[in-house]
Amino acid sequence: MLTEAEAAGPPGVSMFDTQVGFALRRWCPPVLGLDAHAEPGDYLARRAELGAAEVNRRFLEAARLNALCVDTGYTPAALLDPPGLGRLAGAAAYEVVRLESVAEQVAAGGVEAAHFADEVRSRIGAWDAVGAKSIAAYRAGLELSGIRPSEAEVTGAAGQLMLAAESTGAPPRVCDEILHRFLVWCAVDAGLPVQFHVGYGDVDADLRRGDPLLLIELLRAMAPAPAMLLHNYPFHRQAGYLAQVLPNVYVDVGLATHNLGHRSPALIAELLELAPFGKVLYSSDAFGLAELYHLGALLFRHGLAGFLAGGVEDGAWTSRDAERVAGMIASANARRVYGLE
Amino acid sequence: MLTEAEAAGPPGVSMFDTQVGFALRRWCPPVLGLDAHAEPGDYLARRAELGAAEVNRRFLEAARLNALCVDTGYTPAALLDPPGLGRLAGAAAYEVVRLESVAEQVAAGGVEAAHFADEVRSRIGAWDAVGAKSIAAYRAGLELSGIRPSEAEVTGAAGQLMLAAESTGAPPRVCDEILHRFLVWCAVDAGLPVQFHVGYGDVDADLRRGDPLLLIELLRAMAPAPAMLLHNYPFHRQAGYLAQVLPNVYVDVGLATHNLGHRSPALIAELLELAPFGKVLYSSDAFGLAELYHLGALLFRHGLAGFLAGGVEDGAWTSRDAERVAGMIASANARRVYGLE
Amino acid sequence: MLTEAEAAGPPGVSMFDTQVGFALRRWCPPVLGLDAHAEPGDYLARRAELGAAEVNRRFLEAARLNALCVDTGYTPAALLDPPGLGRLAGAAAYEVVRLESVAEQVAAGGVEAAHFADEVRSRIGAWDAVGAKSIAAYRAGLELSGIRPSEAEVTGAAGQLMLAAESTGAPPRVCDEILHRFLVWCAVDAGLPVQFHVGYGDVDADLRRGDPLLLIELLRAMAPAPAMLLHNYPFHRQAGYLAQVLPNVYVDVGLATHNLGHRSPALIAELLELAPFGKVLYSSDAFGLAELYHLGALLFRHGLAGFLAGGVEDGAWTSRDAERVAGMIASANARRVYGLE
Repeated sequence: MLTEAEAAGPPGVSMFDTQVGFALRRWCPPVLGLDAHAEPGDYLARRAELGAAEVNRRFLEAARLNALCVDTGYTPAALLDPPGLGRLAGAAAYEVVRLESVAEQVAAGGVEAAHFADEVRSRIGAWDAVGAKSIAAYRAGLELSGIRPSEAEVTGAAGQLMLAAESTGAPPRVCDEILHRFLVWCAVDAGLPVQFHVGYGDVDADLRRGDPLLLIELLRAMAPAPAMLLHNYPFHRQAGYLAQVLPNVYVDVGLATHNLGHRSPALIAELLELAPFGKVLYSSDAFGLAELYHLGALLFRHGLAGFLAGGVEDGAWTSRDAERVAGMIASANARRVYGLE
Repeated sequence: MLTEAEAAGPPGVSMFDTQVGFALRRWCPPVLGLDAHAEPGDYLARRAELGAAEVNRRFLEAARLNALCVDTGYTPAALLDPPGLGRLAGAAAYEVVRLESVAEQVAAGGVEAAHFADEVRSRIGAWDAVGAKSIAAYRAGLELSGIRPSEAEVTGAAGQLMLAAESTGAPPRVCDEILHRFLVWCAVDAGLPVQFHVGYGDVDADLRRGDPLLLIELLRAMAPAPAMLLHNYPFHRQAGYLAQVLPNVYVDVGLATHNLGHRSPALIAELLELAPFGKVLYSSDAFGLAELYHLGALLFRHGLAGFLAGGVEDGAWTSRDAERVAGMIASANARRVYGLE
Repeated sequence: MLTEAEAAGPPGVSMFDTQVGFALRRWCPPVLGLDAHAEPGDYLARRAELGAAEVNRRFLEAARLNALCVDTGYTPAALLDPPGLGRLAGAAAYEVVRLESVAEQVAAGGVEAAHFADEVRSRIGAWDAVGAKSIAAYRAGLELSGIRPSEAEVTGAAGQLMLAAESTGAPPRVCDEILHRFLVWCAVDAGLPVQFHVGYGDVDADLRRGDPLLLIELLRAMAPAPAMLLHNYPFHRQAGYLAQVLPNVYVDVGLATHNLGHRSPALIAELLELAPFGKVLYSSDAFGLAELYHLGALLFRHGLAGFLAGGVEDGAWTSRDAERVAGMIASANARRVYGLE
């Protein structure tokens, strides 16, 4: 679970021999009482010895977070819920509702197609969430039109969704452009900022269809509702462009930050080329491995601090402005857009 | 007008908190008699106090230009004409004719469709210009075929253009692939280098269709007529590739240079990866704000100088070669291709 | 032959005024007994004086190679064969069979369409090669489906190929998506790693269709057979992503490395963002000019060494890990995947 690979490397290839693997070996062993740069075998042995609960506690605490916004829609295995994560981190925890999961639950519950739209809308409207998440990039791709689908279109698509599930016996799986769009509009109507998975992710993401420029029509149409473009690598410059030219677009480079390890400062600097500093957020996209909460936060802090300090050193901006920008990106922008207290 | 955003930021987001905003605060206040890093409010007050004429004079002079090539085709508000700009800058000023504007003027003048092509050709041929500019990227996109349209095709498209204007009451607006191509060939036949808006621009540009690789067929077909790819970010590496493999292609990173502020050295270094040094030009793409003439020139000088000096320091090239390349990119390449005396 | 340009520059533009030209002038004159940074005229005079045989000998030796894997499919002029290259380099030399050339030879030999597939399969299976090379990117583009074509499809496409050659009198030229795919599967069935030209190349490559993300379906389908993505610039980050998420994908930045000259360290660092270190290979893609063997190897050694040493200096990894990674990328990965002794 260290990288986005779907399987271990072939013989002779270790996933520890990657930027994120080297970053883990540099920064994580000391949290478990080992020396930095421990060998993978020693690290795994120590990790097993401490046990998952203790390891989770240590890394979540080490991440020094004040608040967590957690997408709860992907739980292939037992995972901590937001309150559980928040307790470990000593932080407030908020939920982000995954839109496709709501639709799939409604479809699995045996609703009539004609009532699907109302039921989905009502559940999303009632969800105790600070934001919504769309994974259209993993399914239909990001080339979504800006037009609200009609009730008839949604009913038709919902019927197809349930028919497909019935005929295959598999759980319903939203992968229809109409439904992805419908779900985004449900979130907009519920007053929720909408997160979009963009770019880098596991191989199911089909990166070809994950360029944020494909999403431009929907981004324009949903303004002023906030659109949060997550991850973005290797299209982070394109994302920064959108954050500049569209008033409702916000960006981050979560997931890529820890995967790039020692190269993450270059990534952060590229994101900050066009994106207004009031539109850039921190995220880790940590999932599964507790180490990723720590690495995401640490590498982001180091990368952003280095970027800002370099500018101060070169006289490009003042230390007062640098501190202000750090506060915006590390906390204030997220608090404002998600409405966290 | 500081960035390419179509509107001010949403509450909590200031466009001064951007790379270009920080660059402005670093470099522009001293030109107006303030300390570097002045706060936005103080800067705007001082700017108003001096008045537009004095501010324009100071920044155009500070830019230290020898010659200006000015696209006159976009004038939503009162703007200085090339001679006026040249007087402020103490520089020779040349005109670049915007192709779509000529076509739209001809169409608005009530010509018959069958005479449209001849009238456009004749006006472009007679224009006192050193180059022509195509904004196909803003309208039909850059995927233009390399084939010259036939007279019948142009007549048909011109008829459509005028019919659309008549039926909507709006002024004619060229956005037809046939007409964009026709206009490029008019400029080629008139012996003018053709500038193409590529990549970064305001949100109307639809960056998806602004990748310079889309233009490759037309670029090949129009050789040896010079094709000038402007801006290019974030596709500047693709543009550099085209400048290497096609003998008639030239590139710049105007507009992006000042928008990237402290990051502009990285941009310039990336442009100079594949592009032959004899094919790279300086441009500011400054428009509206006088500050942008100064920032564009200053950041380009600093970025290129740093790039070249770094190579000398590392022993990668000699200081004599560095000075020669600086002269080519900052002046000689443009003088040669545009035929400036 | 210094760059990928199809012709000399227009008047006023020298291909020596490029990153690769400056790198050549820095590193190659001393190998011929001149001072570094020699002027192009002096360099060419000395080169002519020594003669091609001596120049080839000196640069191949200077490259300090242990083994060469040579694609023998493109020989527009007299070129050294792998044994000849190996003798000059003092290295073992292996052949990489170019798939499209085999198909074109079979087609030119007058086989019946119905026997084409068997004949091609049999020749590829019997070839004494360590790998196969596909140039689909130069012909049909990289958007190849993952499905094995049927015998009937191959027979139909082969018939078309031979018919086209017959009717035009030109030699057969494979540029049909079905045949490119068929050839890849022939190589997979023969147990050969398959190299794909990706991204940067001469202008025939049509870079639009050379993005490695287009190839994702075929890459998945052919697993676990190794797929070697060559060159990749400016899509090397996309290639690195594929190397991470797909177990059978390997990457290099050959050709771009020497063309970027003093900028090649930045390229290598970007490749090493997501690509696992066990999936990255060295290649030069040198062809024609003996200098390119030397420059490719030297710039790669400097770039990789600088990258690894920088990480050691920053404490990002240990010198032991740095040496291990250098050994993997410079030699062990290639030996393992190509099965070199």
